[in-house]
Amino acid sequence: MSGNTFGTLFTVTNFGESHGPAIGCVIDGCPPAMPLSEADIQADLDRRRPGTSRHVTQRNEPDAVQILSGVYEGQTTGTPIALLIHNTDQRSKDYSDIAQSFRPGHADYSYWHKYGIRDPRGGGRSSARLTAPTVAAGAVAKKWLAQRYGTGFRACMAQLGELVIPFEGWEHVRANPFFAPVADVARYEDYMDALRKAGDSCGARIRVQATGVPVGLGEPLYDKLDADIAYAMMGLNAVKGVEIGAGFASVAQRGSTHGDSLTPEGFPSNNAGGVLGGISTGQDLEVSLAIKPTSSIASPRASIDIHGKSTEVVTKGRHDPCVGLRAAPIAEALLALVLMDHALRHRAQCADVLAPGPPIQASFL
Amino acid sequence: MSGNTFGTLFTVTNFGESHGPAIGCVIDGCPPAMPLSEADIQADLDRRRPGTSRHVTQRNEPDAVQILSGVYEGQTTGTPIALLIHNTDQRSKDYSDIAQSFRPGHADYSYWHKYGIRDPRGGGRSSARLTAPTVAAGAVAKKWLAQRYGTGFRACMAQLGELVIPFEGWEHVRANPFFAPVADVARYEDYMDALRKAGDSCGARIRVQATGVPVGLGEPLYDKLDADIAYAMMGLNAVKGVEIGAGFASVAQRGSTHGDSLTPEGFPSNNAGGVLGGISTGQDLEVSLAIKPTSSIASPRASIDIHGKSTEVVTKGRHDPCVGLRAAPIAEALLALVLMDHALRHRAQCADVLAPGPPIQASFL
Amino acid sequence: MSGNTFGTLFTVTNFGESHGPAIGCVIDGCPPAMPLSEADIQADLDRRRPGTSRHVTQRNEPDAVQILSGVYEGQTTGTPIALLIHNTDQRSKDYSDIAQSFRPGHADYSYWHKYGIRDPRGGGRSSARLTAPTVAAGAVAKKWLAQRYGTGFRACMAQLGELVIPFEGWEHVRANPFFAPVADVARYEDYMDALRKAGDSCGARIRVQATGVPVGLGEPLYDKLDADIAYAMMGLNAVKGVEIGAGFASVAQRGSTHGDSLTPEGFPSNNAGGVLGGISTGQDLEVSLAIKPTSSIASPRASIDIHGKSTEVVTKGRHDPCVGLRAAPIAEALLALVLMDHALRHRAQCADVLAPGPPIQASFL
Amino acid sequence: MSGNTFGTLFTVTNFGESHGPAIGCVIDGCPPAMPLSEADIQADLDRRRPGTSRHVTQRNEPDAVQILSGVYEGQTTGTPIALLIHNTDQRSKDYSDIAQSFRPGHADYSYWHKYGIRDPRGGGRSSARLTAPTVAAGAVAKKWLAQRYGTGFRACMAQLGELVIPFEGWEHVRANPFFAPVADVARYEDYMDALRKAGDSCGARIRVQATGVPVGLGEPLYDKLDADIAYAMMGLNAVKGVEIGAGFASVAQRGSTHGDSLTPEGFPSNNAGGVLGGISTGQDLEVSLAIKPTSSIASPRASIDIHGKSTEVVTKGRHDPCVGLRAAPIAEALLALVLMDHALRHRAQCADVLAPGPPIQASFL
Repeated sequence: MSGNTFGTLFTVTNFGESHGPAIGCVIDGCPPAMPLSEADIQADLDRRRPGTSRHVTQRNEPDAVQILSGVYEGQTTGTPIALLIHNTDQRSKDYSDIAQSFRPGHADYSYWHKYGIRDPRGGGRSSARLTAPTVAAGAVAKKWLAQRYGTGFRACMAQLGELVIPFEGWEHVRANPFFAPVADVARYEDYMDALRKAGDSCGARIRVQATGVPVGLGEPLYDKLDADIAYAMMGLNAVKGVEIGAGFASVAQRGSTHGDSLTPEGFPSNNAGGVLGGISTGQDLEVSLAIKPTSSIASPRASIDIHGKSTEVVTKGRHDPCVGLRAAPIAEALLALVLMDHALRHRAQCADVLAPGPPIQASFL
Repeated sequence: MSGNTFGTLFTVTNFGESHGPAIGCVIDGCPPAMPLSEADIQADLDRRRPGTSRHVTQRNEPDAVQILSGVYEGQTTGTPIALLIHNTDQRSKDYSDIAQSFRPGHADYSYWHKYGIRDPRGGGRSSARLTAPTVAAGAVAKKWLAQRYGTGFRACMAQLGELVIPFEGWEHVRANPFFAPVADVARYEDYMDALRKAGDSCGARIRVQATGVPVGLGEPLYDKLDADIAYAMMGLNAVKGVEIGAGFASVAQRGSTHGDSLTPEGFPSNNAGGVLGGISTGQDLEVSLAIKPTSSIASPRASIDIHGKSTEVVTKGRHDPCVGLRAAPIAEALLALVLMDHALRHRAQCADVLAPGPPIQASFL
Repeated sequence: MSGNTFGTLFTVTNFGESHGPAIGCVIDGCPPAMPLSEADIQADLDRRRPGTSRHVTQRNEPDAVQILSGVYEGQTTGTPIALLIHNTDQRSKDYSDIAQSFRPGHADYSYWHKYGIRDPRGGGRSSARLTAPTVAAGAVAKKWLAQRYGTGFRACMAQLGELVIPFEGWEHVRANPFFAPVADVARYEDYMDALRKAGDSCGARIRVQATGVPVGLGEPLYDKLDADIAYAMMGLNAVKGVEIGAGFASVAQRGSTHGDSLTPEGFPSNNAGGVLGGISTGQDLEVSLAIKPTSSIASPRASIDIHGKSTEVVTKGRHDPCVGLRAAPIAEALLALVLMDHALRHRAQCADVLAPGPPIQASFL
Repeated sequence: MSGNTFGTLFTVTNFGESHGPAIGCVIDGCPPAMPLSEADIQADLDRRRPGTSRHVTQRNEPDAVQILSGVYEGQTTGTPIALLIHNTDQRSKDYSDIAQSFRPGHADYSYWHKYGIRDPRGGGRSSARLTAPTVAAGAVAKKWLAQRYGTGFRACMAQLGELVIPFEGWEHVRANPFFAPVADVARYEDYMDALRKAGDSCGARIRVQATGVPVGLGEPLYDKLDADIAYAMMGLNAVKGVEIGAGFASVAQRGSTHGDSLTPEGFPSNNAGGVLGGISTGQDLEVSLAIKPTSSIASPRASIDIHGKSTEVVTKGRHDPCVGLRAAPIAEALLALVLMDHALRHRAQCADVLAPGPPIQASFL
């Protein structure tokens, strides 16, 4: 209710601040008897980790996750899985200047008004660092969905600032620090170097996909699958837009074009992005995110202090010039958490439903 | 949990099907002692009502709302407000053909797989008719927010199919059946007439705005104000994309441009769309929606039947060729429901917070 | 959140006041494809109905239930089931005297302080009349549990005022207006007649039982099955105490006596009342309730008015001298709602669990 | 939803097992700017701690609590407060014998059937050790309620096995290891010594009280204050019965006696136990619990193994012969958590209600 728990049946309760002793989460509702170890979770955390290239924040932390509960002799027990990640590389002195004023485009201002108190160290609770527990929880959901339904998740960068990135193949994504689906990223390296020198930041567009999605997940009116995906993605730091399937392009489409026809072999197109009437169709889930440029930049900006007086703000410290560079694994995790929750909801209410015919699963986007 | 209740503290539990005896909702959590009558609610229902121009479905129903509970001597009592709307113009025979096959782009297919049973009459539960109780509940939220904070809501059509609609002024919106912010809508009349003759449908882009928004609403991590807005809007029938503030345009912006500077007089720009770190800033809330073209069209489409065999589907009956034409009041209602819920959440946790200085409220978008 | 919705996966949202136009509820989460008609529900409503003997309130209403949604061609569709019961025999003039003062032992006082406004007609929202929608929803849960697991529910009166009622057999319960498990109820008839003449009221103890309960229902720490049963029962109007199994008698038991031994044939005793560690054992669920004497009595009582001044209150109108007389079917319904909710929760998380051996079901209480 | 989170607006998500690396909880919804330190919490943990007298388990752990988040410069920030308690004195070898069979009266059997897997070390998740995080969270609620409303909490033992304990005064409670409200506890020392020698266990009755309770807390129909208290208390390990106010004694009372009269100076009696119609009256909250005898006893008991075959079980290890001896601080914590949650709920919906006259607060029980 206070906004730190994700999900309804598979819940993730996230805690911590950027420069406190530790961050983490409690996962509740994970089915019993699934093999789970810290290594299963660490792999995704490492993909999100800072300090892995010169284009992201140089804060360097191992982000080693510890399982505190819910696993017995290598298997989940059905009870809460608590995950702990210690903060090891806080440099709070970097933030002392900004405790008295508000960075334009940053949560400083709104937190101050909401709570009347805020932890300014590294952004406190509003730091993108708090996506780490989300990624850890997502890894648990991914594992269960893969075992149970063969569901897979992947994400890539589709645009970096003004540069639209062509899609050459998913195999490239893990081979470069941009999560770009292209063989040669020299152009993006140069772009980021120039941006960093200019003391500025840029946005990004991220594409996220789930494959092997069961048909029939999602609720009919308010907790639609696409609604919950939009909630999850828009809640990710810096996201300003979310699309499912054809997205904003569907505005200019005709109904005779947009509606994916059905054939005995499956859907030959995927304008729906895998959801009709808020319920999954078995097509791939296709989601696209707009990520705004980072607000913490080295260039001076006009602002006000906590007394309402004019001031100028320059953000020092270690910041990502494009938070979109680390967003791909986080977006995958969020999509996995949404699907996991709806998979359990479906079991609760519809476990007796016999699927009327073989599930149709195809995607030729 | 089963997706028919909206909100957490101000909840709307929606029930009914397109061709059942009645639709309606139960509102719980409305503060006591607010004057409320059926007329307060009917005004918004009338704006959403079908049959008001030749461009929307000719199903003609008064959509008269009845308050069954929660109001005593003209005032809310703090107990559940049940609202009932009888269905009066069902013609179920129109739908008998399609009970055995799936309309491309329609929820027929996914409902069938989820539940193993569906009410095919008029789309049953998946009908856009079920937005009426949402609009009714939104009217209650609007009234409370207006009284308590002076908050206002408005929405207009920003694009119709390929036609981008220039913004001439909010005063035009109520003067034409398109909710278009322009004086002359002849061009859009012609466009819709041609579309209807062609037996096809088109999409739309809707802009929604809230003014007079209190600062500090929204939760820090998962139930961010923008996340809940995205959830609400993406859950509206036919929506495929949601933007807050600069939206997808922020991808190509620089941080030095995007972050709205703060001045003692307020924010001179509104790229944030009224939300920073998931919490309202006091700027206007600015939201944009992509609505796909209606799937129920008169042109024949390739599909399958419930046994998985190829068939061809032609949708007869009365359908909107552009559901976007009636989306504006629904989008307003959803935005009001989100704000109402977060206003109550804020009171619960932060009622003791003394706002540090006068709220800054400005918008020069 | 505002206390008018029961359950988490199988939810019942209750609305209405004693003297408003209608009362009812919306059931969400009922699995699809269960046969359901109004007659299924009416049977339990008739058992709870007022006006059936001279010992209960003479308000005489048919309490005819109407299904507004969620059922198509005689089967549930998995979407919300809205139930409506019109109020037909309101006599609001009876209550005009008490709008300005508080009945001792009645919710008048606390409602007034909570909301600052209250509907005094017939107790408004606090009336026991609002148990009717609960009973209606319970009938739906009972039907599903009976079909799916063979679960049955029954309740009887175990004590009327000072009179402990011996248990002669369940077959007597439906044969007398006291729900007493005895062949001859003349003694209780006389007791009630004397009480009514004295203008006074008395309490009752109700025993509720579920048979054929699946093993493994309930959550481990906070939403234990017995905790949720206690919540449901204590929330019933006038209940002041709840026991599971041996209840308060277990205080004076030894561990060597209390703990029900396990045998290959089942449990030879049932001190547990069917729950261990908050999770069902497959034994019968055994619950006992203490119901206080009605607060609305004809004898004059010292009280204060809404301005805090001393006054004397005499309650006129039609009231039950022992609300326990109609509590049995309500207690059954509440137990069914709790079990239904936990059955769905169990499916969500533990649907893959293979029960390690045949379920042990026995009860020799 | 999976039963490890308590509350709705002030939530406590509990994690851990008896013999895992750590136990703890995440508190969400605590209002900002409340001074809070580990010492505030440790005091209550120390009252619940094992190893403090010869009458309780000799497991000896400091139960030192660490605040991981949500507090900045000594004040709550309104964000989640994560509390961690390391397990330091696990002796898992004690439990190896019982992993293959079920202790009569213990959660072993029901956990096994629910999850198909269980952590047998020290009872795993079902251990009473998991009440420690509840007590820690309760200390936070107590502090806020004391500061905001002057609310106080206290509990004592009212009966030990067959021995009813007379009430001599609250001042004695902290002076003996029984939480007994009497000056001389020699009788209870002897009783416990005899019990321990016999290898048996006994039950207890606990009385819990809240003073300085605001009027108007509680919801009208299902989440009544007394319903939530019953839920909280019945969910405490080993509790089999709960009473509010006159409890089961009210069955034999007359309405003319039971209903507490109102006077301009307050309520001269408290049969209601502080709740009318589910909403607090401002009287003291009076709650009574029945605690069953511990199931883990040294005497041999007939049982079955996990294959359903007959066996005999003897529980070795360190166990409390009367869990009621440490229940008093836990019951206080649970009552505080319920009140805290309802205090925040009330602010959400009824913050604008002006109390019509001075709150009446009196208790002469």
